[in-house]
Amino acid sequence: MRIQKLAQEKLNRKTKPLGSLGRLEDIAIQLCEIQQTLEPKITKKRTLVFAASHGIDEEGVSAYPREVTGQMVLNFLRGGAAINVFARCGNIELSVIDVGVDAGFGNGSDSPMFFNRKIRCGTRNFLKEPAMTFAEFSKAIEAGREQARLAKFANVSLLGVGEMGIGNTTSASALFSALLDLPAEETVGRGTGIDDERLARKVQVVKRALEKHRLDGADAAHWLSHVGGFEIVAMTGVLLEAADLRLPVVVDGFVSTAAAVAAIQLNPSVKEICFWAHCSNEKAHKQVLDILGTTPILSLDMRLGEGTGAALAMPLIEAAARMMTEMASFEEANVSTKRA
Amino acid sequence: MRIQKLAQEKLNRKTKPLGSLGRLEDIAIQLCEIQQTLEPKITKKRTLVFAASHGIDEEGVSAYPREVTGQMVLNFLRGGAAINVFARCGNIELSVIDVGVDAGFGNGSDSPMFFNRKIRCGTRNFLKEPAMTFAEFSKAIEAGREQARLAKFANVSLLGVGEMGIGNTTSASALFSALLDLPAEETVGRGTGIDDERLARKVQVVKRALEKHRLDGADAAHWLSHVGGFEIVAMTGVLLEAADLRLPVVVDGFVSTAAAVAAIQLNPSVKEICFWAHCSNEKAHKQVLDILGTTPILSLDMRLGEGTGAALAMPLIEAAARMMTEMASFEEANVSTKRA
Repeated sequence: MRIQKLAQEKLNRKTKPLGSLGRLEDIAIQLCEIQQTLEPKITKKRTLVFAASHGIDEEGVSAYPREVTGQMVLNFLRGGAAINVFARCGNIELSVIDVGVDAGFGNGSDSPMFFNRKIRCGTRNFLKEPAMTFAEFSKAIEAGREQARLAKFANVSLLGVGEMGIGNTTSASALFSALLDLPAEETVGRGTGIDDERLARKVQVVKRALEKHRLDGADAAHWLSHVGGFEIVAMTGVLLEAADLRLPVVVDGFVSTAAAVAAIQLNPSVKEICFWAHCSNEKAHKQVLDILGTTPILSLDMRLGEGTGAALAMPLIEAAARMMTEMASFEEANVSTKRA
Repeated sequence: MRIQKLAQEKLNRKTKPLGSLGRLEDIAIQLCEIQQTLEPKITKKRTLVFAASHGIDEEGVSAYPREVTGQMVLNFLRGGAAINVFARCGNIELSVIDVGVDAGFGNGSDSPMFFNRKIRCGTRNFLKEPAMTFAEFSKAIEAGREQARLAKFANVSLLGVGEMGIGNTTSASALFSALLDLPAEETVGRGTGIDDERLARKVQVVKRALEKHRLDGADAAHWLSHVGGFEIVAMTGVLLEAADLRLPVVVDGFVSTAAAVAAIQLNPSVKEICFWAHCSNEKAHKQVLDILGTTPILSLDMRLGEGTGAALAMPLIEAAARMMTEMASFEEANVSTKRA
């Protein structure tokens, strides 16, 4: 709180009309709070992309077949996906973590950006049974926590989280419904672009899953393990560890936000280290961000995942930090202040 | 039109759900159209900051005194302003052009980023007489056109325009009212942060200026010379030349948009090369962007000018270009397409 006040005062002395850098000023203040300094620094940026397959894809909830998850991981490892391009643009390191993809990657696994932390070849179909066992859930959390620690150790000062997993918007919608008490009709959207028929089926899948797994006193861990995905749970793990380490994390889009909502329910201080990259075009995202009381940095009608929104937002967070450290004050620049 | 269709088809083959990069896809297509290629390239980026003083400041329309314009130019030349920080963040060259600042810059003038194209030490008070003569107007247009040509010659492929000029939101509001037929109450806002009393005065100033200079058949050149500012007219010149050269320009905020509206009225093809950086927090900006039928790239509640919004938006435009050229297609990456 003391840092926040001092950071605001420092901003007010910068050579610009009071408040004229808008939300960039809020970002700068949040960075000061997280790093507990008036000289916040973004030394190194890294985006983590967690990938996993989903048993729920048996229910025909996605526009793309199951094998796309593994194929896209190979695309990441070869540098051809959107996240690769945006990471290069923003000078952001990239790590790709397999926490449950139903495929192998041949010599793609030799890539220095790849981590094999495969827990199982995809979750179970959560219409029939819990998506994962408690042991598997713990492994997924730990796979995420590990990446936050590795980042901290490597002197990364801004982390992004994103995901790849055909079927995972169904998990995310189920989590939003369960954790925020929202009807499936509101949380379910078109994901990769499904038609009306599949959309109706997806709503039914989420409704039936919520009924099946509902339990008195269920917490976020219950719902994550019953209707979540390995990549979602791993992102929750990143956020829990990042809160412990006071490492800022840029939450990507719709699916990443589900991991964040769960993490915040498990440890409310997670919220202090979160930046919200963008408002996804996936239907419920705006509503969820409103419930969280946050305004995302970008709003470009994107809905791709992979951490692409996070990668595009990270340079703006870096700009806010550098504004705080590099911009002259009225006094330093001999500029007259506002008239009385 | 042919390029647009081919660019859309190329985007649809990229490894992502159809349309999932949202407005970044629109940006990529517009770049393809401007450069007439399916391989758009952003080789070098440059932001132009035009500065000038305003005779209308005698009427007490700003929260800051007149000398701040010159002081801020010195701040630019020493690298301490927000635009310097954001330009460094985005790897953007910066040029500062004095087209009418009521101050000298000592050895600041030796800076390689500085251009002395001073037309006069500020415009005249447009409540009493036209802001500039036709000869001065022509010089200001040419000062802008020159910078677009210099940029093209230096192999700059993305240009930003911004400004510094205490009093210039009053000019911009008058221009919006005159060119778009909007009442002064709607176009006048708080600028650098004026109180209610000054705001009421500013509305009256704009109303009286419009009455004084109204003329049957008046075009954008009439209004620019009568109620504009040298930096605004110079930005109009940049846009007119950039349209001739097919050089994309990122229009910064409220004041820059006034220059763009005038340029589009003088030559409608200007609109094809414009990107709109951000929605300023200055009241009328959103309304004007809506009238233009454009959606800005960012919306961060900023209202600083100096080209700061343009500098923050340029990396996103670059990312769109690189997405178009570097991202793999489904075929190249062996990724399965959507199911039937």
